[in-house]
Amino acid sequence: MQTINLKTLASALGLSVSTVSKALQDSHEISPETKQRVWQLARELDYVPNPHASSLRRKRSKIIAVVIPEVADSFFSLAIKGIEAVAQQKGYHTLIYLTYESLTKEQTILHDFQSGRVDGIIISLSGQTTHIDHVTALERKGIPVVLFDRIFEGTTLPRIITNDRESGYLATRHLLQRQCRRIGFLSVSDSLSITKQRQTGYIAALEEATMPVLPEYMLTLPDERAEQEIILSGLLTGPDAPDGLVASVEKTAILTYQLCEKLCIPIPEQLKVISFSNLETASLLNPSLSTITQPAFDMGEAAASTLFNLVEGKNIRSMPTIQCIPSELIPRRSTQQAAE
Amino acid sequence: MQTINLKTLASALGLSVSTVSKALQDSHEISPETKQRVWQLARELDYVPNPHASSLRRKRSKIIAVVIPEVADSFFSLAIKGIEAVAQQKGYHTLIYLTYESLTKEQTILHDFQSGRVDGIIISLSGQTTHIDHVTALERKGIPVVLFDRIFEGTTLPRIITNDRESGYLATRHLLQRQCRRIGFLSVSDSLSITKQRQTGYIAALEEATMPVLPEYMLTLPDERAEQEIILSGLLTGPDAPDGLVASVEKTAILTYQLCEKLCIPIPEQLKVISFSNLETASLLNPSLSTITQPAFDMGEAAASTLFNLVEGKNIRSMPTIQCIPSELIPRRSTQQAAE
Repeated sequence: MQTINLKTLASALGLSVSTVSKALQDSHEISPETKQRVWQLARELDYVPNPHASSLRRKRSKIIAVVIPEVADSFFSLAIKGIEAVAQQKGYHTLIYLTYESLTKEQTILHDFQSGRVDGIIISLSGQTTHIDHVTALERKGIPVVLFDRIFEGTTLPRIITNDRESGYLATRHLLQRQCRRIGFLSVSDSLSITKQRQTGYIAALEEATMPVLPEYMLTLPDERAEQEIILSGLLTGPDAPDGLVASVEKTAILTYQLCEKLCIPIPEQLKVISFSNLETASLLNPSLSTITQPAFDMGEAAASTLFNLVEGKNIRSMPTIQCIPSELIPRRSTQQAAE
Repeated sequence: MQTINLKTLASALGLSVSTVSKALQDSHEISPETKQRVWQLARELDYVPNPHASSLRRKRSKIIAVVIPEVADSFFSLAIKGIEAVAQQKGYHTLIYLTYESLTKEQTILHDFQSGRVDGIIISLSGQTTHIDHVTALERKGIPVVLFDRIFEGTTLPRIITNDRESGYLATRHLLQRQCRRIGFLSVSDSLSITKQRQTGYIAALEEATMPVLPEYMLTLPDERAEQEIILSGLLTGPDAPDGLVASVEKTAILTYQLCEKLCIPIPEQLKVISFSNLETASLLNPSLSTITQPAFDMGEAAASTLFNLVEGKNIRSMPTIQCIPSELIPRRSTQQAAE
């Protein structure tokens, strides 16, 4: 099948390519009769403008990129829905790029955006990301960027976050109120902003209760599943095994459940668990999982709204550079006391 | 910051734009010394070619599109990992487009691809899709398309599937062997290829056991959550409530668990449940969920490999147009008998 382009239309109508192009762009230089003829044939032949060519002219790709560590996580899949809801209204495509927690992959993806492939970027940083030169390079080239959830602390770029520090504090206090005395904190990366904030809240709650803050109870799990199992099993079966755990990432809670089953450690009797999570099955687990539930959809929506304000060149001096949408603590059976 | 383009490089070096362009493309028309000068400055100034301009020249976007109904599903998030693994090796970007089960959205996305925005497409059809004119239109324009999982039956396009019919048969036989006598079948769309196949297997198993096939036990749940609850509750609390369920989609199993908790219907004592699912928490649910686990990662890999063969213009006459990778039945507590 022949490709229908400006040339095809022009020769079929006996007009110049430039006249056809101007007619399709509704230029005042072209007569209404000519425009009518061009539009009619374009419709009949199902003419689709070449996006590369028209992007060059318009300098807009009508695409926004969402760069995230993974999709196999309930927080990110919900956040994407929030972003899409806004992008669809604006007539934009949303493209999803995955870094799989790799800084190198994140840098490669972002470097490629420098050339104007997309009109704006929403990013949640990888677990390896310790600087954001590759992000600020985009801003310097005039490409709008919004950070969400996993942000970088020392930046003035717009950021959408939740109250991670306070939530870490509340989760820990919840365990203290349920009589836990040896509370552990699980994470997958200690360079992540959200990990640092949640851990600061955890420490604050322990200090408030005049409990010791012990480094051996703060575990950063490596990437490899086999290593994760060895390290966490070591903690759970050690002489001073914890009686409570704050899982700062959903997958560390799932791992804890799997290991407790294997090691015959009853939850909540011997170990109470609370996790940052948007897992749809949280209430169906055995036992049901107490969670800090993040406003994932709302954060996605807020990130997209902020990005489109930047893309459309609105005056952002009046907009807050950081927006915080609070999370919710939902107690379930995994932190219940025997007496309850 | 100024954008570094061919013109910037040319004027800085005192060369013509065309010379710089040819030098960057390593043309034999340009002397090694000139190329050296151009490359060095391009590196120093961190020159990035404009993808729209270079796509026009190369006619390759180095992008493949993955069009799927959603990411909040363990099958699709795993399949994406399989696709990415292959695309990354080939130096391609993978872009993810979501249809949210809408035929209109699927049509809009695919129509836009006609203009050559991407080099190839991997698609799993929406629940509303009853014809694939919008898919074959791409094939006619020479853009390679591979269907996976949710395919269309009457097409010669390459398809990657699992043994849905056999799995539906095995799941139902599993329930029959566990003494279920009133077995229901849950789906979310009756136009989906996978639903039809799984249901055909379900019917075959019932007929083999000389059990009646009753339309009231085959439920197609609507989109709205509230309606889903009303319809499924009606079945579960009716006079001839089922004692076994085959959930053909993961989310119908989650809904069943939630309703059974609300309605105090014990699983597996009063109702046994088996689901098509790749849910990571299947073994942690209360009770652990028996599953037909699909080879999601492998299907993603196979779809991407097939697509790149097409993109690279390999002789595909010798390739099978349909590849079937079998699923696995994993029995857990949700289908256990009291005696076991």
